[in-house]
Amino acid sequence: MGLMEKVTVELEDRSYDIVIGSRTLSAIGDRMAQFGFSPTVAVISNPTVLGLYGEDVVRSLSDAGFNCFSSLVPDGEEYKDYYWAYHILTELLRNRLDRNSCVVALGGGVIGDITGFCASLYMRGIHFIQVPTTLLAQVDSSVGGKTGVNHPAGKNMIGTFYQPRLVWTDVGTLATLPRSELLSGIAEIIKYGVIWDADLFDVLEKEREAILGLDRSVISYVIKRSCQIKAEVVSKDERESGLRAVLNYGHTIGHAVETETGYSKYLHGEAVAMGMCLAARLSSELGIMEGSHADRIKSVIGAYGLPVELPKDVNGDKLVSLISMDKKTVAGEMRFILPKAIGSVVIHKGVDVKILKRIMET
Amino acid sequence: MGLMEKVTVELEDRSYDIVIGSRTLSAIGDRMAQFGFSPTVAVISNPTVLGLYGEDVVRSLSDAGFNCFSSLVPDGEEYKDYYWAYHILTELLRNRLDRNSCVVALGGGVIGDITGFCASLYMRGIHFIQVPTTLLAQVDSSVGGKTGVNHPAGKNMIGTFYQPRLVWTDVGTLATLPRSELLSGIAEIIKYGVIWDADLFDVLEKEREAILGLDRSVISYVIKRSCQIKAEVVSKDERESGLRAVLNYGHTIGHAVETETGYSKYLHGEAVAMGMCLAARLSSELGIMEGSHADRIKSVIGAYGLPVELPKDVNGDKLVSLISMDKKTVAGEMRFILPKAIGSVVIHKGVDVKILKRIMET
Repeated sequence: MGLMEKVTVELEDRSYDIVIGSRTLSAIGDRMAQFGFSPTVAVISNPTVLGLYGEDVVRSLSDAGFNCFSSLVPDGEEYKDYYWAYHILTELLRNRLDRNSCVVALGGGVIGDITGFCASLYMRGIHFIQVPTTLLAQVDSSVGGKTGVNHPAGKNMIGTFYQPRLVWTDVGTLATLPRSELLSGIAEIIKYGVIWDADLFDVLEKEREAILGLDRSVISYVIKRSCQIKAEVVSKDERESGLRAVLNYGHTIGHAVETETGYSKYLHGEAVAMGMCLAARLSSELGIMEGSHADRIKSVIGAYGLPVELPKDVNGDKLVSLISMDKKTVAGEMRFILPKAIGSVVIHKGVDVKILKRIMET
Repeated sequence: MGLMEKVTVELEDRSYDIVIGSRTLSAIGDRMAQFGFSPTVAVISNPTVLGLYGEDVVRSLSDAGFNCFSSLVPDGEEYKDYYWAYHILTELLRNRLDRNSCVVALGGGVIGDITGFCASLYMRGIHFIQVPTTLLAQVDSSVGGKTGVNHPAGKNMIGTFYQPRLVWTDVGTLATLPRSELLSGIAEIIKYGVIWDADLFDVLEKEREAILGLDRSVISYVIKRSCQIKAEVVSKDERESGLRAVLNYGHTIGHAVETETGYSKYLHGEAVAMGMCLAARLSSELGIMEGSHADRIKSVIGAYGLPVELPKDVNGDKLVSLISMDKKTVAGEMRFILPKAIGSVVIHKGVDVKILKRIMET
């Protein structure tokens, strides 16, 4: 087992550690044994991830004395829905998990979000642990306690705020990740650079080769730094009443693109990449940020092979309508997170629909 | 509008008032206007209750400037399920409620539980207000923030802890309540007497005529006292990690009876009445309480026409199996709330299955 790094999410009695290391999956049982959970543990995963890492995790849990079973959800964002959540809940009941039991989310964001959702609802809340196996989940969805499932009317419309007891990250899992999914995660890391940390943004510009080559030291650094930024924001605003909204940079438009294309055409990070480019342009059109910064953001996103503009076949009117349905829209007023420079953003209310449409259509 | 009484549930930033009065439904709009919610309000109810009280509530909300719509769930515990919750969530989306919107639960425990559940999940949580119209909901389910739906494997197996912003009780609604439902609520009031307050128990013994006749002064007193006791317990243990379990006196066996009979044969309070009698007898068999107290408990329950023993056709083995699946059962160890005298209880762990079966079968 390699060096492990730790980031703590400070949330009083709901605080927890994010542990980042390599070849750490086989140590999860020992770490979990320290919590005093009930003996039966559920591992929620998808067939692909379970095939790759299930054996390591299940053996580690069994060696640590847990009685372990797995419940599977098919691979894909379209299965992150209310009905698959019911399937998991029924499996937990059938295996008689009790209030002191723990469920383990082994997989990417879909698995983490739906597992957290089920953990928060099962007997009004049981323990859960995130074992994120995609870069996107490692830097974003596994941290911060947002759980949820999608609804035809919008992404994550049904969910809870519910914190895991531990996030257990093995960067070794990135070796089996499809390239497009790796890039999807990098989009979120770029986001942290733009909203919070110009130094991280510099590293992303300069260390492209090392990052794409999964250089252990550089990739661990950018994951850890991303988790630190997210942990800091979440500690100050757990339930998204203010500051936490900055994490949604690129996401308002991104979510609308995902909804409009049925969650199947673009990966989350790809949609967010488009959203970040458009929000940067919107910011410079509104005079909030210099155009040169918007160009630099677009340039880094493009350098990683991520999309920098909306696809031609997406309808601007439909996107604007979806944005007005977004969870961040309150009393009909659209809010956008707009960068004012690399490393800092503002929450901007009351964006003119006409300007938004013009940017989307040109 | 008559005299209003107020009980505050102290839970830091989640504190809220329970307001008890008569002819108060037509004042709800003005009270809600003080919160600053978004203009669109959903009233969740069932056809029976909406027919009786919907007009008063909707007119009051409209007069206060709210844009109001209603969503209905059929009348009955069997509809308090995961699928009807989805129906409500879809209606909230269709009507474009936002994060600052409020939903009103107008009805009994089924409506309150499922509405609270939906409010806690919609966009990860929006505001909700309880307007309980049954005695059971007024003294129990509307207070304390337990939300949930049933699963074939057990009652309330899927749910959340989520507090309302206000509980708005109109005792006038009891006039239209079927007698059996009134008695079901009285069973819970008897529970508060047994677990917490010998004086309340005395009032229940002595004022039977006044209570059953809905004497406004006596009924308001017993409702207020019940809410005070529940508020005190909930303030000390919101998420049921200890003390709150005392509220489950009579409920462990009661829930098993309800599950075994498909939630349709007995009202909740009737099942709890059986459970309280059996738990009292179990307590005296175990030497925790004198037999004379158990007789007194059984006598009051019987005096209100509530059932004091299990029906002949219910299978004891099946009930014991269901109890071992109860949410209160941790690591296979059955826990019972047992009275040691009128006004005080203990949490008793590790009850012998044989003694339990014997009590159930004789």
